[in-house]
Amino acid sequence: MRIAFAELFETMQGILTRRGMAPDRASLCARLFAETDRDGVYTHGVNRFPRFVRMIDRGTIELGARPVRTAQVGALERWDGRRGPGNLNAYECMARAIAIAQEQGIGCVALANTTHWMRGGSYGWQAVEAGAIGICWTNTLPNLPAWGDSVPRLGNNPLVIAVPRAAGPIVLDMAMSQFSYGALTAHRKRGELLPVDGGFDTAGNLTRDPAEIEKSLRPLPIGYWKGSGLSLMLDLVAAMLSGGMATHQIPADPNLEAGVSQFFLAMNAAAFAGGDAIANAIVESLGPVRYPGQRVMQIRAESLAGGIPVDEKTWEKVLLLK
Amino acid sequence: MRIAFAELFETMQGILTRRGMAPDRASLCARLFAETDRDGVYTHGVNRFPRFVRMIDRGTIELGARPVRTAQVGALERWDGRRGPGNLNAYECMARAIAIAQEQGIGCVALANTTHWMRGGSYGWQAVEAGAIGICWTNTLPNLPAWGDSVPRLGNNPLVIAVPRAAGPIVLDMAMSQFSYGALTAHRKRGELLPVDGGFDTAGNLTRDPAEIEKSLRPLPIGYWKGSGLSLMLDLVAAMLSGGMATHQIPADPNLEAGVSQFFLAMNAAAFAGGDAIANAIVESLGPVRYPGQRVMQIRAESLAGGIPVDEKTWEKVLLLK
Repeated sequence: MRIAFAELFETMQGILTRRGMAPDRASLCARLFAETDRDGVYTHGVNRFPRFVRMIDRGTIELGARPVRTAQVGALERWDGRRGPGNLNAYECMARAIAIAQEQGIGCVALANTTHWMRGGSYGWQAVEAGAIGICWTNTLPNLPAWGDSVPRLGNNPLVIAVPRAAGPIVLDMAMSQFSYGALTAHRKRGELLPVDGGFDTAGNLTRDPAEIEKSLRPLPIGYWKGSGLSLMLDLVAAMLSGGMATHQIPADPNLEAGVSQFFLAMNAAAFAGGDAIANAIVESLGPVRYPGQRVMQIRAESLAGGIPVDEKTWEKVLLLK
Repeated sequence: MRIAFAELFETMQGILTRRGMAPDRASLCARLFAETDRDGVYTHGVNRFPRFVRMIDRGTIELGARPVRTAQVGALERWDGRRGPGNLNAYECMARAIAIAQEQGIGCVALANTTHWMRGGSYGWQAVEAGAIGICWTNTLPNLPAWGDSVPRLGNNPLVIAVPRAAGPIVLDMAMSQFSYGALTAHRKRGELLPVDGGFDTAGNLTRDPAEIEKSLRPLPIGYWKGSGLSLMLDLVAAMLSGGMATHQIPADPNLEAGVSQFFLAMNAAAFAGGDAIANAIVESLGPVRYPGQRVMQIRAESLAGGIPVDEKTWEKVLLLK
C-alpha cells in the first residue's frame, strides 16, 4: 500500500503527542521517521516505529529527555543524551556541530548515553542541507564478530559521510557489516543467495546463503580484517570522546539497546572557495557509476507524488498504537 | 640483511642533505622513512626511497618547498603543499592540526598540492604521541575501479584513525582496496593465492589469483560497493576542503604522482575525562583478537635491538644515491 507523506507523518506525530511528547519534539521525531521512508530507506523508518514506541512505553527510551552539554573545549563538545529518543538526540547534536562549524569552521559533538538514531543518513542530509560537510557515526549493540573471532563483540557501527553539492548532495550511509540482518532476511524471504559472501555458516565456512548466517550470527565485516578494524576504531573514538558506553557494554537485545555513543562532525564547506565545482567534476569523472545518495532525490519526488510504499502489516501495527 | 636504525637514518639523511635539503628537514624526512621500516611497514619505507629521490631529481617533488596556509576559518585551515616532499608536508599539517586541537579541542587542516605521504600511519602515530586522536587520509592516483566499473577511476585513498592509550596506542592504517599492488606482487612471488577474493580477472570473474589482478588492473574495493563509496567520499572531502586535485586529475603513473589532496583532523582526547580507561576496557573486551597497531611496539623493539630487515637490492639502490 502507499500512504501520503502527510498521513504517515501525522499518524506518528499524533501517537507521540498523545504519549506526552512535546508538540515540537513529536513533530520533528515523526518527520525524521516519515522522511526515512520518503527517501526509500524502508529498513529504518516506519517499520521501526512500533518498536520505538514500545521502548518508550517500557521506559528504555526516555520520552521527555533532552540532551545536555556536559563538557566543552573550544569547538569540541561532549553531550549526554540521557537516553532520550535517539533521532531527536542525534538531530540536536548534528545541529549543534553545524552551528559550531558556522562560527569556527569545524564543530564536533560527542554524544553519550543515547538510543538508536534510526537512519544515520538523516544527519548527513541535515548537514548538507545546511551547507556543511557532515561526518557522523554511532556504535551499536554487539552484532559483528571481529575478523578471527566467532562471537559478535563488535558493532556494525554505521558511518555517514555527506558533502553538499548544489546539483545534488552526495551522502554515504553504511554499516561495517557487508549485509545487515534486515538484508539477510530479505534475501532469504525472496529465496535468493547473496551476491557475494556475507558471512560464515555454522561450520565456519564463508557462505552466500543468508539463512546460514542468520543461524551462525556471524555476518562478515566489509573487507574482512579491514572493516573489523574500522568498526573498532569508530567504537573507540565515539566512546572515548563522549565518555559513554562502548559496544561491549551495550545490551545485545535490540529491544533493550540503549546507552550508545555517537560522534558528529560538521565542517563549513562554504568557508573556502571552489568546493562545488570540485564535487561536480568528481561526479562527472565517474561516468555511468552511481554516487551514494544519487537515487534519493528521485525516490523522494516519487514518494511525494504517488505516496510512500508501506508494508500493510507494519501499518496495522502503527495504527494499533493510536 | 639487517641494518641498524642509525645507519639507515643517517644514510638517507646524508643523501637528502647532499641534494640540498635543509638539515632539519632532511633529518625529519629520513627519520620518517627509517621509522616506517623500524615499525615493520616495509612497503612504504626505505624501499620507496630510491623512487622518492628520483622524483626529487626530476623535479616532480620540489625539494625545498614548504607548505603554506592559504585560508583559515577558526579551527579549519586550508594549506598548499607546493609539491614539496609528501612526508614533510603531511607531518607539518598534522602538527598544525594537533596545535589547533590543543587550543580549540579540535583542529583540521586540508592540504592541497602535495606528494605521496609514504606511510599514512606515521601521522596517526604522530597524533597519539601528542595525546591526540588523529584521523587523516589522502587521495591517490586512479588505481581502483569503482564497483560496477572496470576502469580504475577511484584511488585506494588510505585512511588512518589513531587513538592514544597509555598501554599502547591503537592505530589503523588501511587503503580502500582489499589488497595493495605490493601485496599482490608479494603473493605472486611466493606462489600463493590470496586468502580471499582480491579482484577480477581479465574475464571479469572474481579471483584469488594475484597475477590475474595484476593483469586486469581491477583490484577489489573493501566490501565491494561499500569501499567504493567510501573511497569516493574521502576523495570528495579532501579535494573540496583543500581546493586541490581529485583522483581523476592525478597522473596515473606512480613516478609522476603529484598534486594529491589530504585531510588531517586532530582532537584533544585528554580534554575530557575517562578516555584511557574506556580504551583499555574496549581492548580487553576483544579477548585474543589483535587490535590495529598492536604488534608495532614489539616489532619496533626488535628492530632497535637487532637491526631492521632491509632487502639487499633495495639497499644497493639506496647506496648508489649517495
